[in-house]
Formats: sequence, C-alpha cells, structure tokens
Amino acid sequence: VHPEAIHHIGHAVDDLPAAIDVYERLLGGEVEHRETVPAQGVEAVSMRVGSGRIELLRPLGEDTPVGKFLANRGPGMHHVAYLVSDIRASLREAAEAGAELIDPEPRPGLFGLEVAFIHPGSVAGVLVEYVQYGRNGDGSS
Amino acid sequence: VHPEAIHHIGHAVDDLPAAIDVYERLLGGEVEHRETVPAQGVEAVSMRVGSGRIELLRPLGEDTPVGKFLANRGPGMHHVAYLVSDIRASLREAAEAGAELIDPEPRPGLFGLEVAFIHPGSVAGVLVEYVQYGRNGDGSS
Repeated sequence: VHPEAIHHIGHAVDDLPAAIDVYERLLGGEVEHRETVPAQGVEAVSMRVGSGRIELLRPLGEDTPVGKFLANRGPGMHHVAYLVSDIRASLREAAEAGAELIDPEPRPGLFGLEVAFIHPGSVAGVLVEYVQYGRNGDGSS
Repeated sequence: VHPEAIHHIGHAVDDLPAAIDVYERLLGGEVEHRETVPAQGVEAVSMRVGSGRIELLRPLGEDTPVGKFLANRGPGMHHVAYLVSDIRASLREAAEAGAELIDPEPRPGLFGLEVAFIHPGSVAGVLVEYVQYGRNGDGSS
C-alpha cells in the first residue's frame, strides 16, 4: 500500500505571520487551515500553493520537537508527508522493509488527519510522515 | 504568475543506489530519469512516488553546491521546486516582492528543465526553485 501523492511539506518557522506573508506574496499561497495543538507543541498553518500544500509549523516552546529542530537547524524544511489510503498497512509494510517507525501505530495529527512518522535515519535523512484522511474526509479538523 | 504545483522535492544524498532502494522499497518509488551533469557537480535521479516526484542529488565532489550542503547538514531535503508557466515573469514578480534571486535569469537545469533558484533567506530558510518545462515538454532531457 504505497503513497498516492505528496500530501504536504512541513516547514518549521519561528515567525508564522512573516512566513505566511512570504508564501502569499512570492508564491501565491492561500491559507487553508490553522490550528494550535498544545499537546504537540505547535501552532500550524496549512497553505495551498497551486495544487501543492505547505504546512507551516511554529513551536510553542523550545522544549518541543519543532523547537529543538529550529534550535539545531534554523528555519527550513522539517518533513515530507505522503498520503496513503491504509496507514496501518503502510506502516506494517514499511517496518517489514526495515524502516524504523517513530509511531508504530497511527495517532491523531494536525487538521484531523491520522498520522505516523518514520525515522529520518530510514529515509536517507528525511523525516517522513504518512497521512490518512480521518473521519471528516478532507483532513479538516 | 504563481506556481501551479510542487514539481519536486530535491533530496541530497551521499549514496544514490541506497537512496533509490529506500524509495523503491518503502515508498513504491519508480525511477523516471537519470542524468549526470559535471557542470553542475551532480548525479541526479528523478523518482515518482505516487503523483509526487523526488529528485535525488549526489554530489560529484566536495567542492560543489550539493557537496557543501552534505558536508554542512548531512543527507536530507535540499530544495522545493515549483512548476511555473512563465519563469521569467515569476522571477520578475518575486524580485519585485523583495526576493533575493540566485538566478536572475532562468538557466538550463536537470532533465531539460528551465530553472532558477531563490535564496533560502527570502523563503524562511527554504531553497526554492522555479521550474518551467523546456522544449521537450515533459522535462525529459
């Protein structure tokens, strides 16, 4: 059960309004969803750029996954999310192929999505997220 | 003249066969094109993952742009490429919006594409490439 498409690119930023402005002015981006999730330590904004999608992530504190990423690497690309139709089957097959799963079971993600992450060490340095649409169908929360 | 779509994600790697293997096994990727361009210091492989596209980049030497990226950051996401229909107009508009252009004029890129890069400092830390299909239409070289 392989990915159907790239669902989004996660982009870690420290200044969310400035990043939204850049995507709007330079790339014609349009805000799709916004959500703050204290449990995950992020304020997130989903933007469409043409048919593509960028997920802007601002950490709510330094001691969060995105906060640590920013402290180590600075603003930039954080992960690539692939849309799958059966996330449990995709995770099982990835594990059988030798991937190190950060989330052995899917969990609730941003914007009502079911998500699971694969360790970047298994994908040549890229943090990969599997995304499956949840009950609302379109990923809105 | 804003982007129509995300054309590909550039992924810098040090071991190209291993990276191809990972995309094939974990993500069902399929090799689309291969090209070695000594003038740009890279060996590149374009892969489809579902409807998405990953461009694997292996540097031909340490003193190349991708070689320096790998030395500084290690393997990982290198750039995001957006498909545009009129690359000169997109560059002009990006410059008017305040973007720092690495390539003020489009130049021949990989796989027969016309390309131009925007400095990551202008896009919250993400190296952005504009891509326009060249004479061969489909981007094949």
